[in-house]
Amino acid sequence: MGRPAAVHQILYGFQLQFIGVDIALVGGTGDIGEGLALRLARDTDHDITIGSREKARAVSRAEEYSDTLRNRGCSTRLDSAANATAVRGADVVVFTVPPYYLKETIRELEPHFGSDAILISPAVGMNGDDDGLHYKPPETGSVGQMVAEVAPPSNPVVCAFTNLSAARLTDLDDTVAQDTLIVGDDDESKAVVASIVESLDGITPVDAGPLANAPEVESLTVLLINIARYNERLENAGAKFV
Amino acid sequence: MGRPAAVHQILYGFQLQFIGVDIALVGGTGDIGEGLALRLARDTDHDITIGSREKARAVSRAEEYSDTLRNRGCSTRLDSAANATAVRGADVVVFTVPPYYLKETIRELEPHFGSDAILISPAVGMNGDDDGLHYKPPETGSVGQMVAEVAPPSNPVVCAFTNLSAARLTDLDDTVAQDTLIVGDDDESKAVVASIVESLDGITPVDAGPLANAPEVESLTVLLINIARYNERLENAGAKFV
Repeated sequence: MGRPAAVHQILYGFQLQFIGVDIALVGGTGDIGEGLALRLARDTDHDITIGSREKARAVSRAEEYSDTLRNRGCSTRLDSAANATAVRGADVVVFTVPPYYLKETIRELEPHFGSDAILISPAVGMNGDDDGLHYKPPETGSVGQMVAEVAPPSNPVVCAFTNLSAARLTDLDDTVAQDTLIVGDDDESKAVVASIVESLDGITPVDAGPLANAPEVESLTVLLINIARYNERLENAGAKFV
Repeated sequence: MGRPAAVHQILYGFQLQFIGVDIALVGGTGDIGEGLALRLARDTDHDITIGSREKARAVSRAEEYSDTLRNRGCSTRLDSAANATAVRGADVVVFTVPPYYLKETIRELEPHFGSDAILISPAVGMNGDDDGLHYKPPETGSVGQMVAEVAPPSNPVVCAFTNLSAARLTDLDDTVAQDTLIVGDDDESKAVVASIVESLDGITPVDAGPLANAPEVESLTVLLINIARYNERLENAGAKFV
């Protein structure tokens, strides 16, 4: 990464592959946290730490995830900690928290971020009515841009995992076979995130440009939920770009 | 359709299929008009009329399209007329014009609409900067909703074809193999449009709910153009929902 010393690069085809990345899932006890934790633990060699506001909750959820994985014959290395401890020393911090807690969460945890840790924003703002859900970005234009505004300038922000269904990630029998979009202003951190995504079975990273393009990426999540609602065959719909 | 007498329904599996629909492409001389005209003429039995502000332009473009089709061994029935004549008697009117001409075009043609002709809006508002394109809906929330606001209340509005690349539609060797989203407030007219889409080789209609959900549908178009820009393998990207 030219970043944390613990991260090693090997040349993999034309793409850099990053191994042994220390990934903290802030609020990793929720549904999208669970899905990502299970897939990251099953499919990659990265070091995953489940974070929660309460340490005890992180510990019990990490045990549940580990049980799920062991029952499928996967040896796991899921760690757990209070959020502040989880992010300390992490190369990559994923904010698997609802968007309305994000600002507060980042401000609280900021003193504990590694100086150039990559921050991943998978959250999307939306509200609903009788017709369906509607994209409701914060004033900054998107959740990703809001995270970048609140976060220290030395921590690059990447939107990823926005358009993956928690239910499908959690169902380890689901092959998923979807794309997830990646936007960010720092190419190196995008390459790290793309490499992590690439190592998840069935999921392909697709670059959608700089963070200024985050609104359309986040809006897709809302569209997918509407599609799921109006099409029985597309429950928990995802997207593949062709 | 329970609508124009010229349209016949037959039960096709669980879906109604509509045959012999009279489709007018307003501004059908442009790139998306060309793509839709070629595919509709090649793949369906509907009656297609190319409309233009200038009749001569409609005639010459319709001849070009017909030549293209004849060179591929397809017998065609492409008609052409000035926009006002084209929409008169049409069951379905597709507005293949840039979004900034839409209001004016609809107001001008409105006296010529069949009393319950279906209006299809494939246009999307966007603007660009160095990073990419950005979704820029009109004040009503989306182009689709703007069309509904301007159009007579008896004419149901359906968004469709918003996310298909003109270049790929025009390239008749491209199998496309994509979904196109359909939104609208009138289920019957959505079924007609879905049936038309279904008859295009490779293209699958996907319901995204009422017109209130048009913003996220239109925003996808912008995302696809950004994806195309940042991924060589996804030139003229489309979407498939999985």
